[in-house]
Amino acid sequence: MRFHTRKWVKPEDLNPNQTLFGGQLLAWIDEEAALYTVIQLENSKVVTKYISEINFMASATQGDIIEIGIEVLKFGRSSLTLKCEVRNKMTRETILTVDHIIMVNLGDDGKPVPHGKTEIEFVKDRL
Amino acid sequence: MRFHTRKWVKPEDLNPNQTLFGGQLLAWIDEEAALYTVIQLENSKVVTKYISEINFMASATQGDIIEIGIEVLKFGRSSLTLKCEVRNKMTRETILTVDHIIMVNLGDDGKPVPHGKTEIEFVKDRL
Amino acid sequence: MRFHTRKWVKPEDLNPNQTLFGGQLLAWIDEEAALYTVIQLENSKVVTKYISEINFMASATQGDIIEIGIEVLKFGRSSLTLKCEVRNKMTRETILTVDHIIMVNLGDDGKPVPHGKTEIEFVKDRL
Amino acid sequence: MRFHTRKWVKPEDLNPNQTLFGGQLLAWIDEEAALYTVIQLENSKVVTKYISEINFMASATQGDIIEIGIEVLKFGRSSLTLKCEVRNKMTRETILTVDHIIMVNLGDDGKPVPHGKTEIEFVKDRL
Amino acid sequence: MRFHTRKWVKPEDLNPNQTLFGGQLLAWIDEEAALYTVIQLENSKVVTKYISEINFMASATQGDIIEIGIEVLKFGRSSLTLKCEVRNKMTRETILTVDHIIMVNLGDDGKPVPHGKTEIEFVKDRL
Amino acid sequence: MRFHTRKWVKPEDLNPNQTLFGGQLLAWIDEEAALYTVIQLENSKVVTKYISEINFMASATQGDIIEIGIEVLKFGRSSLTLKCEVRNKMTRETILTVDHIIMVNLGDDGKPVPHGKTEIEFVKDRL
Repeated sequence: MRFHTRKWVKPEDLNPNQTLFGGQLLAWIDEEAALYTVIQLENSKVVTKYISEINFMASATQGDIIEIGIEVLKFGRSSLTLKCEVRNKMTRETILTVDHIIMVNLGDDGKPVPHGKTEIEFVKDRL
Repeated sequence: MRFHTRKWVKPEDLNPNQTLFGGQLLAWIDEEAALYTVIQLENSKVVTKYISEINFMASATQGDIIEIGIEVLKFGRSSLTLKCEVRNKMTRETILTVDHIIMVNLGDDGKPVPHGKTEIEFVKDRL
Repeated sequence: MRFHTRKWVKPEDLNPNQTLFGGQLLAWIDEEAALYTVIQLENSKVVTKYISEINFMASATQGDIIEIGIEVLKFGRSSLTLKCEVRNKMTRETILTVDHIIMVNLGDDGKPVPHGKTEIEFVKDRL
Repeated sequence: MRFHTRKWVKPEDLNPNQTLFGGQLLAWIDEEAALYTVIQLENSKVVTKYISEINFMASATQGDIIEIGIEVLKFGRSSLTLKCEVRNKMTRETILTVDHIIMVNLGDDGKPVPHGKTEIEFVKDRL
Repeated sequence: MRFHTRKWVKPEDLNPNQTLFGGQLLAWIDEEAALYTVIQLENSKVVTKYISEINFMASATQGDIIEIGIEVLKFGRSSLTLKCEVRNKMTRETILTVDHIIMVNLGDDGKPVPHGKTEIEFVKDRL
Repeated sequence: MRFHTRKWVKPEDLNPNQTLFGGQLLAWIDEEAALYTVIQLENSKVVTKYISEINFMASATQGDIIEIGIEVLKFGRSSLTLKCEVRNKMTRETILTVDHIIMVNLGDDGKPVPHGKTEIEFVKDRL
């Protein structure tokens, strides 16, 4: 699993108990899954179709740095299945894991279309 | 299931495809589950522990009004299990459903403690 | 008066004195009045035209849950007049009241047009 | 009336009809009234107590620049009464006016206390 | 230098150390430079091209009021060069200075075009 | 230079010309520099002291994915000097570069203190 995006937990990200607001964390994961999919499928029109169960294993507090990891599980015909882990950057403690996130590739009409990809590609190899 | 909170989908809530950003929707659900739990358990210190799989069945676009419904499935000893549905207020089309959201009641030390509740209560009956 | 939308007062909603920022509260009220009007008039193009005097009777602090109530006072030809109350969900203490909010129904050209409604309707009866 | 603060209407400030969201505008006014009061009373603990009726006379769209004007109407014992006008910076068209905003000076206990001010002061004269 | 826009440092503007987040401050400066340029060039299509070195001389904390000053250094053919200072409104302490911000005037095609301005104008003289 | 954090340009990140708001980009850079420094210095109390000139070489539009790269130039006694580049993830086009960002290590009293670090460390080697 590759960990790229990092977030610094700021006051605006907290819930009233002063720990990282779970909803904010979910929003960060969804954005990361979406942009990872855009990169792989080379199509900016993608949507989240399904997220498997989410276990909140640890929390984070103000000033913590978290990193979001994504791994590809499967290239479908018009979909891409990802796995996600969020962990504390400094301690490597796992904050949550999501086993399956299914992203769907859309055409201009907003309907699923085949993406033609079958394996991970790196941008540097495309250029 | 009771539907209370409503949201008006504004430009700031959109993803780059101009539909409701899934991450924003997840943040709204998490907030609703949390505040519903605070109301039932009469304790402001609660956290989301688990969210079961999420199926995005339909989307929403700018100007749509959505409403979020919560139903209690089970009062645990220190937890509360909820079910959630989000739908389009005008068409009643289901946008997504979450079968189980487990919220945990915390003590001042941030550890789970029994909440002593066994059934839904209404604020008007408490006052 | 019916109370639907609920908000959980989070750190991002506070003023520098650590109480609920009044401007945030006004934004929540305006959104609620707008979406209520969209529902009643079945037109997504509505604007706030007038808000009568606002008395801030109590405040709210981090972790409080507030609920926003709306009541219809009058169906005009191209307008809808609402009354609004915000209260603390747990204590039922009134936070503020607004006696009149006048919302206007617009046509595609952005000018007021008659909406043809004369009484409250429920979405379930329309479907 | 002196106009100081200016805002550039950005996509995040719009309602779903693509005009300036009224709630955002109200939040800007409340912040301006509060900070103006902090400056005059030399006390950072102030709250909005009352806002007289608000007439939305014109709207603003993306890219517009608006400016917010504040004028002092009266120094009370523990309050300050302001008048506010928001206008389009480029056309000087009035967007809305608020005849009275009553701000209250608070002590450390959060209760109103006399502020001892009787007239407008300029920071440059204090230093 | 003229100081117009003022900001009240709220909890949402803080970094995890509870001082004003530098990135928020930079965003405020960029917005002020942009809107000042729109006013002078009477063109809403402008972009930031260059910002000279930024020295953070002091910080700000929750509840502080800051003001942003802009001065024109030079009218180029299709550009406008500004100088910027941010200071604490109450103490006049300088928070940061930027010696040169170069803004560029764009045409409908997004390419630089001459703006035809050679000196500061006031909106009141144009009307 | 290592590129970690990625951002998906969403409607809320745009200026009124519908390109990425420069101020938002600066805020992202400042956050990345800060969290990178926290990781290297193993101290969460760090501040941005200086940012050298910034050249906006290209823009980004809605739906673009950008990535932020950081490189260490020098470990000072109580400071860390970084270099930053932002580029379009898909095309590798450079959006902006900043040659020097000086971050300062603070003690509990908010004053600079030596950090004792002299070279880049990886979290995996520390654990």
